[in-house]
Amino acid sequence: MKCKILSFSEIYEMMRHLSEKIKSSDYSPTTIIGLARGGWIPARLLCDFLGITDLISLKVEHWLETGKTKNEATIKYPITSDMNEKNILIVDDITDTGKSLIAASQYIKTLNPRKIKTAVMQYILKSECKPDYFSEKVTDWYWFIYPWNWIEDTSTLIVRLLSDYEDKKYNLKEINIGLKNLFGISWNTNELKYILNLMSERNQLELIKSSGKIKYKFKTKKVIKL
Amino acid sequence: MKCKILSFSEIYEMMRHLSEKIKSSDYSPTTIIGLARGGWIPARLLCDFLGITDLISLKVEHWLETGKTKNEATIKYPITSDMNEKNILIVDDITDTGKSLIAASQYIKTLNPRKIKTAVMQYILKSECKPDYFSEKVTDWYWFIYPWNWIEDTSTLIVRLLSDYEDKKYNLKEINIGLKNLFGISWNTNELKYILNLMSERNQLELIKSSGKIKYKFKTKKVIKL
Repeated sequence: MKCKILSFSEIYEMMRHLSEKIKSSDYSPTTIIGLARGGWIPARLLCDFLGITDLISLKVEHWLETGKTKNEATIKYPITSDMNEKNILIVDDITDTGKSLIAASQYIKTLNPRKIKTAVMQYILKSECKPDYFSEKVTDWYWFIYPWNWIEDTSTLIVRLLSDYEDKKYNLKEINIGLKNLFGISWNTNELKYILNLMSERNQLELIKSSGKIKYKFKTKKVIKL
Repeated sequence: MKCKILSFSEIYEMMRHLSEKIKSSDYSPTTIIGLARGGWIPARLLCDFLGITDLISLKVEHWLETGKTKNEATIKYPITSDMNEKNILIVDDITDTGKSLIAASQYIKTLNPRKIKTAVMQYILKSECKPDYFSEKVTDWYWFIYPWNWIEDTSTLIVRLLSDYEDKKYNLKEINIGLKNLFGISWNTNELKYILNLMSERNQLELIKSSGKIKYKFKTKKVIKL
């Protein structure tokens, strides 16, 4: 699985690019709805690029319906305020399956705003939903690791790495090499140590200290998921 | 007026520091409430540092009550969901007067969560409200310009600069020098040009082209405010 770590400056430039595309269209959003949690940072940056102060959150949750293999999306916290006069722009970080954008759009439609459009940073071509605006069209699939997911996503990848040999004790260097070989990513030593310590605090791996050296071992497949 | 432009990496390190302070206390928040709009990016980063998925927005608005000089804070979009079992952490970027944090805390209290605590990146010592957690205590007042306000805040400062001599036509270099002298900030040329063009699109200044050169002139004091 190929992964790519994105930096804050890459995010900022993608959002600037997205804002230019929106401005050059004929749509003038009055209100940005950022999807929680992935859309929050893109949505907030877009407020500054577009000069929009009306910012609302919508939490779309994904769950596996009993007996089905299909991932469904539902709204967690309903919006109760009047949307009648608003031109809505729904914002998310990425549309991969498209389910979040579809669920959010259908829900917002029931609140009868004047207009609804959707915008994402990255649009993965196989998405069921083509957003009205996107900064980048992704034809070559990657798991993109955004700054607000650096810890969560890297933890997930480290668990996958360690679970390949559940009894093996890895040192820092071996984990770095494993992340590079399996997923194509690398962190600097301090950042990786920080994430591994956090994972130990969260019982996501076993931290073994012996004769002054630290090793890491598989513990559980349970990690925080969206 | 002294200003300071903060970078994404400074924000990220402040939020990491804030998360360490929260973890070393005896409080385990289950839910983060990010104040719109300033608290959104800090709140989202804190989710990753603390491993929290339950993220809610609360919009606190500031207004000048008729006949009063005092700035009041009110809640724009009410929260209608059950908060009974939640340990709330209210998150904002900065507490300056303290009014946002006080209004948010009072409001959340009416929803009867299990516990409420507050956390900010920067705590200005004169704030009426001392947050439970802060990354940095500010004793020497600055106007901090965060990445999600780079454009809005810089626009406000440029309007102030231009309004000192309403008839003067400034070139790019003069604006750069003015920002440095009056506010102690500097942007690189491309970024400043980008902001000045945006301000022209938004009718916040007059852009004058004559014999291939561009100058900028005061137009209005009206800029986007929180």
